[in-house]
Amino acid sequence: MRISELSRVSGVSIATIKYYLRAGVLGPGRHTARNQAQYGDAHAHRLRLIRVLMDVGGLSLAAVSDVLDAIDDNRLPLHRLMGVAHHALGPHATAAPAPDVTEAQSDVGELIERLGWKVSARAPARGALAEALVALRRLGYGGGVEVLAPYAELAGELAGRELTTVATGAGRHEVVEHVVVGTVVFEAAFVALRRLAQEHHSAVRFAGG
Amino acid sequence: MRISELSRVSGVSIATIKYYLRAGVLGPGRHTARNQAQYGDAHAHRLRLIRVLMDVGGLSLAAVSDVLDAIDDNRLPLHRLMGVAHHALGPHATAAPAPDVTEAQSDVGELIERLGWKVSARAPARGALAEALVALRRLGYGGGVEVLAPYAELAGELAGRELTTVATGAGRHEVVEHVVVGTVVFEAAFVALRRLAQEHHSAVRFAGG
Repeated sequence: MRISELSRVSGVSIATIKYYLRAGVLGPGRHTARNQAQYGDAHAHRLRLIRVLMDVGGLSLAAVSDVLDAIDDNRLPLHRLMGVAHHALGPHATAAPAPDVTEAQSDVGELIERLGWKVSARAPARGALAEALVALRRLGYGGGVEVLAPYAELAGELAGRELTTVATGAGRHEVVEHVVVGTVVFEAAFVALRRLAQEHHSAVRFAGG
Repeated sequence: MRISELSRVSGVSIATIKYYLRAGVLGPGRHTARNQAQYGDAHAHRLRLIRVLMDVGGLSLAAVSDVLDAIDDNRLPLHRLMGVAHHALGPHATAAPAPDVTEAQSDVGELIERLGWKVSARAPARGALAEALVALRRLGYGGGVEVLAPYAELAGELAGRELTTVATGAGRHEVVEHVVVGTVVFEAAFVALRRLAQEHHSAVRFAGG
């Protein structure tokens, strides 16, 4: 299909498609004539994937590029894939952490060890978890690492169920994409569902109290 | 304390504090002399709260302002608080939704009804959930509303537990802040824990397979 048709089926404007082509997150079409190229279903799918990562996952184009590199990297062994995909998803540590962040990171490390989880020492989620603990502590809510225990329990249960839905028989490329989409989309879905459930439970609790 | 001391204890620069004062998200200090003001612990606490909402919750200053208005609004009945706080947290719907988004919103409405959850028709999380379903459908992953059922079950369980930790005996202002901080901070914490658990389960599953 021509770029105008690709724009129609993907819902992405021609100007944005051209920008993605220049940025390298969308592979080039097959050139058929001077200034004309043909695109296939794979291009349309890739465009939808880019939009999901940006719109649902809130990723920057640079982060999208990193995630797509992980999806496309055939040398990456499957058991290391989740870590690499998560690393690409971020967040990325910036400046040197404040002393209370360093302390929280060590608390998070102990929690992970106690749970028996095998997780890369450089997993960005370790830092995100430490930031959450620090936020509680700075606001005077205590924030001992044990407040995370019920969340860790549910998260472990959820992740265990989720991984069994990834078909090992599927092609490597499909498995990787499935994992990335599942991480981003169900994360957003769970956050939304928790907020809905909170609204419900608080209406019930405080209306009666 | 003077503004320099407030900056030191809160970790927020003097320039940023002045910006928050002008934007009205931080109340004015007590003026003691021309161009001098005294600030108290409440100012330091409010500054830390603003930083948590922005750094952990990813909120814009405009969204922070909406959330603080909800916290400070004494006329708001407690059972409506969660909905208002969530509304302030966003996301805020922008353009008219695409036809497949409208369809997904109606599916989400049916799911909420089936769960028996009492949730405002204008809850932003309804839209966020519809966007997640649409993302799955556009990428060809099916995305019938039943894929959300296990997430809804866990989210309901979590929210039920969380609400019991909010002391009804505490002051109204404390309850509201507790609810907002809990929403933002434990959302970030749960997302991080799920990613860590996913990395663990995928390492175990794919290393052995």
